[in-house]
Amino acid sequence: MVDEKDFALLTDLYELTMCASYFGNKVKGIAAFDLFIRDLPQNRSYFIAAGLEDALNYLKNLKFNDEHIKFLKSKKIFKDGFLNYLKNFKFTGDVFALPEGTVFFPNEPILSVTAPIIEAQLAETFLLNAINLQTTIATKASRVVLAAKQKPVVDFSLRRTQGADAGMKVARASYIAGCAGTSNVLAGMKYKIPVYGTMAHSFVMAFEKEEESFEAYSKTFPDASTFLVDTYDTLKGVEKAAVATKKLENQGHKLKAIRLDSGDLASLSKSARRILDKSGLSHAGIFASGSLDEYKIEELLKKGAVIDAFGVGTAMGVSKDAPYCDVVYKLVELSDHGRLLPTMKLSKGKVTYPGKKQVYRIADKNGNYAKDIIALRGEKTNGQQLLAKVMEKGEIICKMPSLEKIRETTKNNLSKLPEKYKQLKNAASYKVETSRGLIKLTLKLNKTIREKV
Amino acid sequence: MVDEKDFALLTDLYELTMCASYFGNKVKGIAAFDLFIRDLPQNRSYFIAAGLEDALNYLKNLKFNDEHIKFLKSKKIFKDGFLNYLKNFKFTGDVFALPEGTVFFPNEPILSVTAPIIEAQLAETFLLNAINLQTTIATKASRVVLAAKQKPVVDFSLRRTQGADAGMKVARASYIAGCAGTSNVLAGMKYKIPVYGTMAHSFVMAFEKEEESFEAYSKTFPDASTFLVDTYDTLKGVEKAAVATKKLENQGHKLKAIRLDSGDLASLSKSARRILDKSGLSHAGIFASGSLDEYKIEELLKKGAVIDAFGVGTAMGVSKDAPYCDVVYKLVELSDHGRLLPTMKLSKGKVTYPGKKQVYRIADKNGNYAKDIIALRGEKTNGQQLLAKVMEKGEIICKMPSLEKIRETTKNNLSKLPEKYKQLKNAASYKVETSRGLIKLTLKLNKTIREKV
Repeated sequence: MVDEKDFALLTDLYELTMCASYFGNKVKGIAAFDLFIRDLPQNRSYFIAAGLEDALNYLKNLKFNDEHIKFLKSKKIFKDGFLNYLKNFKFTGDVFALPEGTVFFPNEPILSVTAPIIEAQLAETFLLNAINLQTTIATKASRVVLAAKQKPVVDFSLRRTQGADAGMKVARASYIAGCAGTSNVLAGMKYKIPVYGTMAHSFVMAFEKEEESFEAYSKTFPDASTFLVDTYDTLKGVEKAAVATKKLENQGHKLKAIRLDSGDLASLSKSARRILDKSGLSHAGIFASGSLDEYKIEELLKKGAVIDAFGVGTAMGVSKDAPYCDVVYKLVELSDHGRLLPTMKLSKGKVTYPGKKQVYRIADKNGNYAKDIIALRGEKTNGQQLLAKVMEKGEIICKMPSLEKIRETTKNNLSKLPEKYKQLKNAASYKVETSRGLIKLTLKLNKTIREKV
Repeated sequence: MVDEKDFALLTDLYELTMCASYFGNKVKGIAAFDLFIRDLPQNRSYFIAAGLEDALNYLKNLKFNDEHIKFLKSKKIFKDGFLNYLKNFKFTGDVFALPEGTVFFPNEPILSVTAPIIEAQLAETFLLNAINLQTTIATKASRVVLAAKQKPVVDFSLRRTQGADAGMKVARASYIAGCAGTSNVLAGMKYKIPVYGTMAHSFVMAFEKEEESFEAYSKTFPDASTFLVDTYDTLKGVEKAAVATKKLENQGHKLKAIRLDSGDLASLSKSARRILDKSGLSHAGIFASGSLDEYKIEELLKKGAVIDAFGVGTAMGVSKDAPYCDVVYKLVELSDHGRLLPTMKLSKGKVTYPGKKQVYRIADKNGNYAKDIIALRGEKTNGQQLLAKVMEKGEIICKMPSLEKIRETTKNNLSKLPEKYKQLKNAASYKVETSRGLIKLTLKLNKTIREKV
């Protein structure tokens, strides 16, 4: 496992070699880097910002210990002067950021980092990693939650997330995005997220008869029983659940739900509902799981599936159809000895906008999002400023909102994004303009660089 | 971050509720669970086993501490008797496993766990998570390495892996699969994997002129300079690299390589090669990166790209086209009070094979893999046994091989898998049979269960 005290080395080697060369060549300017996503992945029409808390804690605590220095020295490529510098390294920069839960779009900075170039450069890899995972998952999970229309969605993905850290962050990010909770017990403990879960097929199989497994379970959890009914034959399973639950109900307890985990969920849910109702169990819910994602949930509800809640696993937990965002961290300005040098690169298909920026959001008369403008910071523009200053001189200056609060923010923001931008496929393209100032600077710089090259 | 001491709670809640009910109902049989992958993901034709070391360390050290017990108690669903049991929990079972680096196929057990049912059940979530990530990545990376045909591949994915843990495990699994190293410095320290990296576009942009950045870098790393040449105009960049390197070469140093990171890499590499050769830099290599994967590498080499090594990032690090394996953990046998009860489920599309198993591999006369047979353990069958006993009564009884050794195992195994099974797309389907004993048991059990249901 990765220990937080080792985060300083959780970086690409080139961050360290570049920093060694900045150090050796006395390149000491103040750099501004934008962290943003270049394009929308397939079927995505917006992003949900997440991962800021981890990013800020990383910057605040970034430190090289003796073991790290010893390891770097053993590579025999770094000079002692630079290694001594690293021993006393501290991040002293400023950060503007989109609050977690913000709806945003390509090219809008999620983080804007201003610091001496070595410090800002060194942070690149970790910041990208932290923002990428949680933003990817929060975005995916928000789609699942929207598709489920008010019905609770529970994160069931831990067994197939990409590692332990992802298991935790998926629980967090999907809760931010509106999930009702997670199956991940540790996430419940660490993040205070509600945890859910009852039984797997192995439990049913561990008893000679299916109904025995239900009776045994309800003896242990008389008021919290959800029976998994599809181990052998789903509808017979529902009938057995109804019978097995009689004793329970006679003793004043209530069956909470049954769970369907395979087969034609739309049709099975309707039949299961009839069996339950006929057996006087109309209070018992129907929980569905089994390779679900936003597309399948939308289809199930269109088909009139009688499902009260969804367990969604792998497809959400790895963001199966778009397992990463094309997130990048680009140098946009460098001021050296009083000389301000906005920068951009011209690599094919990878052109970047120069300068420190602010993002403005324009609302329509109902308060709904109409368009965004990416402008230079300080440029006069209408709209609500989305980037807030969250770190100054290496210290966190914002109050970290609770997960509940971030979850609320996400919900509010998504409610202001018109429906046409929230279709699961072929959604309308939200308008993001660049300001006059930004266009002017880009054109000017483009010309200067082309003359130079 | 997830601390190893918290692994006991890194599990789905239902593992704990099931265990509580096994405990309450005195279900104490010895259970056998198979961990296997149901299907080949799209474009995959084999798997590379990885993640066993983590899995075994988890089982060996599994322990609930006071904080965990307190948290579980606070949920108000567990009885004190069960919580007391957890306080003294220890995994005491046996494990058979495919050694890391083994080539394997769907339905072949990767792990076979035999233990009192509570212990075996509790381990499910973590074991799936550990095996899934590393097996998914080792499999993907082996494809990239095969496509690169002898040319080194370096893992560049850390910035967009799904979290910190994945960043480490991707470096490990891709090294096992044959990558030459990683950009991840911490993986270099923890796993002793070679680390690689030189400069990013931001470094080039931090200097007023491109050539200044090259000169500055080579001053710091005179014998280890790889210049990134595509920040503004790739071929002009190569020319500048050649000029900037003159001084370096005159002082007896050598330019190591240039790196291309965008554009038409096949055509650019040929032009760059000509420029370098004309400038007396035929010793300098050409390193390519930029959204590469096995498909693009295969295409580049087909087009005659003059590339000496590849940096492969996100597509490999998240296994973009198949970001998980459909790995499951199924109860296959339960012996209770002397009564042996092989088990299987009949859920639609999710039928499992009962009984404890062994996998046999049959070679052709040249020693190449011809077919596998999944048999009952103890059943007489020809071929090499793939599953080895690695844990007995909760203790690891095998020597953990070094990463170098696992890497060698992978290479040897893949060399014995005929070419037709290693095509990137539309590969031939490797034959995996089930033994007579297994078929007989499956049919018998199917009948028994259908009569019961």
